[in-house]
Amino acid sequence: MVARTVDLRSDTVTKPTETMRAAMATAEVDDDVLGADPTAFRLESEVAKITGKEAGLFVSSGTMGNLISVLVHCDIRGSEVILGDNSHIHIYENGGISTIGGVHPRPVKNNEDGTMDIDSIEVAIRDPRGELVFPTTKLICLENSHANSGGRCLSAEYTDRVGELAKKNGLKLHIDGARIFNASVALGVPVQRLVQAADSVSVCLSKGLGAPVGSVIVGSKSFITKARRLRKTLGGGMRQVGFICAAAFVALKENVEKLDGDHKKAKELAEGLTQIKGLKVDVAAVETNIIYVDIVEGSKITAEKLYKNLEEHGVLVMPKGLSRMRIVLHHQISSSDVHYTLSCFQQAFTGMRQEIGSYSISTSRDVSYA
Amino acid sequence: MVARTVDLRSDTVTKPTETMRAAMATAEVDDDVLGADPTAFRLESEVAKITGKEAGLFVSSGTMGNLISVLVHCDIRGSEVILGDNSHIHIYENGGISTIGGVHPRPVKNNEDGTMDIDSIEVAIRDPRGELVFPTTKLICLENSHANSGGRCLSAEYTDRVGELAKKNGLKLHIDGARIFNASVALGVPVQRLVQAADSVSVCLSKGLGAPVGSVIVGSKSFITKARRLRKTLGGGMRQVGFICAAAFVALKENVEKLDGDHKKAKELAEGLTQIKGLKVDVAAVETNIIYVDIVEGSKITAEKLYKNLEEHGVLVMPKGLSRMRIVLHHQISSSDVHYTLSCFQQAFTGMRQEIGSYSISTSRDVSYA
Amino acid sequence: MVARTVDLRSDTVTKPTETMRAAMATAEVDDDVLGADPTAFRLESEVAKITGKEAGLFVSSGTMGNLISVLVHCDIRGSEVILGDNSHIHIYENGGISTIGGVHPRPVKNNEDGTMDIDSIEVAIRDPRGELVFPTTKLICLENSHANSGGRCLSAEYTDRVGELAKKNGLKLHIDGARIFNASVALGVPVQRLVQAADSVSVCLSKGLGAPVGSVIVGSKSFITKARRLRKTLGGGMRQVGFICAAAFVALKENVEKLDGDHKKAKELAEGLTQIKGLKVDVAAVETNIIYVDIVEGSKITAEKLYKNLEEHGVLVMPKGLSRMRIVLHHQISSSDVHYTLSCFQQAFTGMRQEIGSYSISTSRDVSYA
Amino acid sequence: MVARTVDLRSDTVTKPTETMRAAMATAEVDDDVLGADPTAFRLESEVAKITGKEAGLFVSSGTMGNLISVLVHCDIRGSEVILGDNSHIHIYENGGISTIGGVHPRPVKNNEDGTMDIDSIEVAIRDPRGELVFPTTKLICLENSHANSGGRCLSAEYTDRVGELAKKNGLKLHIDGARIFNASVALGVPVQRLVQAADSVSVCLSKGLGAPVGSVIVGSKSFITKARRLRKTLGGGMRQVGFICAAAFVALKENVEKLDGDHKKAKELAEGLTQIKGLKVDVAAVETNIIYVDIVEGSKITAEKLYKNLEEHGVLVMPKGLSRMRIVLHHQISSSDVHYTLSCFQQAFTGMRQEIGSYSISTSRDVSYA
Repeated sequence: MVARTVDLRSDTVTKPTETMRAAMATAEVDDDVLGADPTAFRLESEVAKITGKEAGLFVSSGTMGNLISVLVHCDIRGSEVILGDNSHIHIYENGGISTIGGVHPRPVKNNEDGTMDIDSIEVAIRDPRGELVFPTTKLICLENSHANSGGRCLSAEYTDRVGELAKKNGLKLHIDGARIFNASVALGVPVQRLVQAADSVSVCLSKGLGAPVGSVIVGSKSFITKARRLRKTLGGGMRQVGFICAAAFVALKENVEKLDGDHKKAKELAEGLTQIKGLKVDVAAVETNIIYVDIVEGSKITAEKLYKNLEEHGVLVMPKGLSRMRIVLHHQISSSDVHYTLSCFQQAFTGMRQEIGSYSISTSRDVSYA
Repeated sequence: MVARTVDLRSDTVTKPTETMRAAMATAEVDDDVLGADPTAFRLESEVAKITGKEAGLFVSSGTMGNLISVLVHCDIRGSEVILGDNSHIHIYENGGISTIGGVHPRPVKNNEDGTMDIDSIEVAIRDPRGELVFPTTKLICLENSHANSGGRCLSAEYTDRVGELAKKNGLKLHIDGARIFNASVALGVPVQRLVQAADSVSVCLSKGLGAPVGSVIVGSKSFITKARRLRKTLGGGMRQVGFICAAAFVALKENVEKLDGDHKKAKELAEGLTQIKGLKVDVAAVETNIIYVDIVEGSKITAEKLYKNLEEHGVLVMPKGLSRMRIVLHHQISSSDVHYTLSCFQQAFTGMRQEIGSYSISTSRDVSYA
Repeated sequence: MVARTVDLRSDTVTKPTETMRAAMATAEVDDDVLGADPTAFRLESEVAKITGKEAGLFVSSGTMGNLISVLVHCDIRGSEVILGDNSHIHIYENGGISTIGGVHPRPVKNNEDGTMDIDSIEVAIRDPRGELVFPTTKLICLENSHANSGGRCLSAEYTDRVGELAKKNGLKLHIDGARIFNASVALGVPVQRLVQAADSVSVCLSKGLGAPVGSVIVGSKSFITKARRLRKTLGGGMRQVGFICAAAFVALKENVEKLDGDHKKAKELAEGLTQIKGLKVDVAAVETNIIYVDIVEGSKITAEKLYKNLEEHGVLVMPKGLSRMRIVLHHQISSSDVHYTLSCFQQAFTGMRQEIGSYSISTSRDVSYA
Repeated sequence: MVARTVDLRSDTVTKPTETMRAAMATAEVDDDVLGADPTAFRLESEVAKITGKEAGLFVSSGTMGNLISVLVHCDIRGSEVILGDNSHIHIYENGGISTIGGVHPRPVKNNEDGTMDIDSIEVAIRDPRGELVFPTTKLICLENSHANSGGRCLSAEYTDRVGELAKKNGLKLHIDGARIFNASVALGVPVQRLVQAADSVSVCLSKGLGAPVGSVIVGSKSFITKARRLRKTLGGGMRQVGFICAAAFVALKENVEKLDGDHKKAKELAEGLTQIKGLKVDVAAVETNIIYVDIVEGSKITAEKLYKNLEEHGVLVMPKGLSRMRIVLHHQISSSDVHYTLSCFQQAFTGMRQEIGSYSISTSRDVSYA
């Protein structure tokens, strides 16, 4: 029997709060495929406003948001997109931009901080008047914060420079902003400023912000018109979608302020873990809510045994390859959960559990919809 | 000022009932992308059971259900699908099976009753060992009830014959069951029997059944495993999707029994309209909840004026081409609405309104979320 | 042992003439992928001139010519093409426009004469500002002469009307001119006039004209620039391609004048066949070099036996379905071959061979490269 | 006026020899789309034999050979291919595997010698039973010799190791053998041994071997059957293709033995160039017929001026980026051409031409078809 569960696999696992449920229960809805749902419209407008773009469109996931954005910018057969070789779009979205969209990806090396060298991007751009054997570069994609780099943040200045390069070459810039609010909070820079140079942004509401479902993509009115049509093609048009938009609106209003706490808890947890002999964490790299932890070679415990041991104590992490795990903090992880998690790791390595008697059994998550 | 609104454009315009809202408010949810949402699972299992298939998958629309189904069956480059030239997939789904999926459609003529001649289907099948210049037929699609044929129903026997033809030729059979419950109720045949010969069915819950969002596709376990992956590729995977599944479950439980009333009201409305000089309706063809109405050439009123006149009285219909309109009944259209609609048509043609004093102002729809 | 072979399966089976071989032997060639082959350029210019278009591009087949043309006109994701339901592109090109190009076909019924009703085309056009659920019509395709309709010809006037419709709706018009020279000769109308309304034409040189390999597509300079890039993508760019262009140039210069003879022989053969009890031919429909022959039900001989019997006598025809065969005349079928063929058919049905003693053994084809 | 031309841009620029022209003039040909051309068959069989594979298929270019091979191995929607980030397929083939084929590329870093680290390949493979968000790895591609790495060769042992990795993971291995004969000659290892581990190979005949047009892809019979169908889809099926196959056959028979000379001349030229102050060449890396030359920063002459200067003397090289050029030797570059080229470079940098009086005006190429 598991006394408590601390689910650190992702920030997508949060449960909707009572406020969200209440908002859903009273949401005004209508047929959004016919363009009539007022709650969807309110959410889309709000995200457009926050990001400083003309218009927004609700989509059912970050993957759909990125897919539609890339395909709208790369609407002509023979298009190529420059993106990070360690980016979410390239690694974790089923290759959909190629297998569904026929877009050719040109991955450029991601640095440890999630950036790509400006020079490397520039070299990768194919001159549109160019050779007969080149696809046509249409788009550059950034990701902020950058998940596979441990949630590190791209600065507004870096993004501006990529934006200038794009503009100079007649390209568009898309930002995968699955965790753009985390970046904004960590950098202390408004979202609008961070994405100022972008032609489109995909903003996820069901990760750190805790909405049950959905992302909003934003851009120019003309971009959103094309995106709406493509969403219909994919089957992503939903009828009385206002219910989930109502919950997402609450997430946007209530949970941005919780992100700073998540980052602090991530830091605290990272610092704790790095003191465990057998684990290695780059604490300085923990800028937001994601921690990458490596099991040192020759450690007392194998990765497999560690995960099993943790799971028996209700602590869930996400294995990444053979000896690396990912830990993601979110608003339903309490300080107590952090301490408990640390003690479980400690025990796994030393065989001894320390001072966990004082921990409360209930997690904040349990409370949230008890 | 419009005193009342009678929205007959589609059965997708229904508003969620109080029971649905209540179910959403208390739904147990979890991360469905990680396969953990119990409410999604319950809905999928229920639809699988009703249709007699092994497994089900919730998708955000009928279009996504058909797209995924066709693409799973036609997973190999060079596949062809045989489908009705007047079918929803061919006409109203953005050509997504080709433009997104690269599948070649081979449309066969739809008869007035929504069938395709068995012989015509057979001739259209390309021998898989066949010529170098043929794509490979992999799939036949039917649609039951058949929207563009006025909601007419395909019999179990007809479907069986197509199924046999498919099996004999090593093909799969998919049924677009956007309104399969309407067909079941009209024919007095269980859904399971109607789709017995099918390898997959797309069942819509947000049309006549009135769910806010969603369809469920059903088929073998192996089909659903592939469909789940493809849903993720399209970005159709949703996190705490149980909320909308909870509402859809209510739709399934409470609203099937209302369909017979919709069909009766459709018949009543059709009979009334056919008595108006200037309109033409094939009353016998009104088997379910859809009516096609033609404005007779040389009529006193143009289509444009008619729609405007109706709209001024709050009656909304869907124009189809220059002189044809589509009317769709659903559970939020009351008998009173039918009479009111008839009187509005009558008045438009005669300039006189008859005996509407007795009509109640409130429609059942207004009541439902007052 | 087969004393002689009369290959009537297609006009693609012709063997290159001595003049063609000589032209190849001395052709000036260079790297055409680098745009430097003078012989390719000469051929492309010549076909452009004949068709009255700005520029041309050599491609390795009619299929590639059509594929490239459709894809250039439908360069944006979500495009739809209107084409005949019995057209070569729809039936015999592997569905490549969809399976390789992601273009959605909207087939319109082909009449017996190869036309599509203008009204039917008009109805099939999707308003580009139109509904969210429609692909965007970009292109109309015609085929002249129309192979599956028995090689019947589209008049310049009909083509003009389709061209006007296209222009009015902002669409392009492509003509599959695999046998456009046959149509020109049969109608007595210059090719340039026949394709005047077209934005692009695919002209085949290896069918009736007898070139060993190749087609030329023609259109505006901008169309050809895009086509050249797409040809490279498909791998259709060839280095010292001038050799085959040299032979094709000879075909163009020497063999157009032979087409009239092919048509006359086709008529003669059709008239002879229609007098055989058990066969049915629509002689009036034989406008060019193609004959469709039906074996009447209840005939003395089955299709299978007939083909076997004919083959034993060296007469090759192309079966089309269960009881229909296609016969195609070309410049390497002599009058003697026609008489011989007739006598073989006659014998197959009567068991008696008539007056074949006088036939010469050598066919013109044998002579051509003896 | 240019007294002589030394075209070093590529080995595709060779002109057909007299023997090739003679072979073409007398080639026995037939309709290859109907599978009847004996000369095509002879060439395909010969290349299959040389490579040790079951069957072969003539295609019009290396690009088509690679495109078809990748698409046949990746025939299921959602497939991924691992290939070098500096490989010809990834960089120079228009992204066709994605834009035409919908295959997702997963580029792995190419080392300077054209290899990819085995570990890096292994990490890039996606477990086919794996996560919902991964495309399915189906294929690994190598390129031997590796053009963008300066024509360096992959050893049989390296290829075997990649082959074992592929087999262990249920993947296929394709080798882009555009210059596999160069590799074979340079390594002193038979082609058959070099490609032993491969499931398919694309062998180009119009590069170093000097055929006017074409490549042959080889693999299992089942692979070739699928490839033939796909070739037809692309429009790459050609009727009396035997003419160009006849020339290619001569290339195969006569020109393999000339490659060693090309390599020696490349070495000689590289050694000469490296002694010119202002140029930098990695002579040790010149293993076959390709030389990369860098213009040292701060050199006396800009790249632009250098190319102009060389061109005025008839020496053509291929610029690669801002300060790098590619030089390719082939059998129509004589020793005299090499000396002449060196003297032109020398003169460009020093303003002085040295001892060129003794050079003959005619290049071997001119002689070849005088």
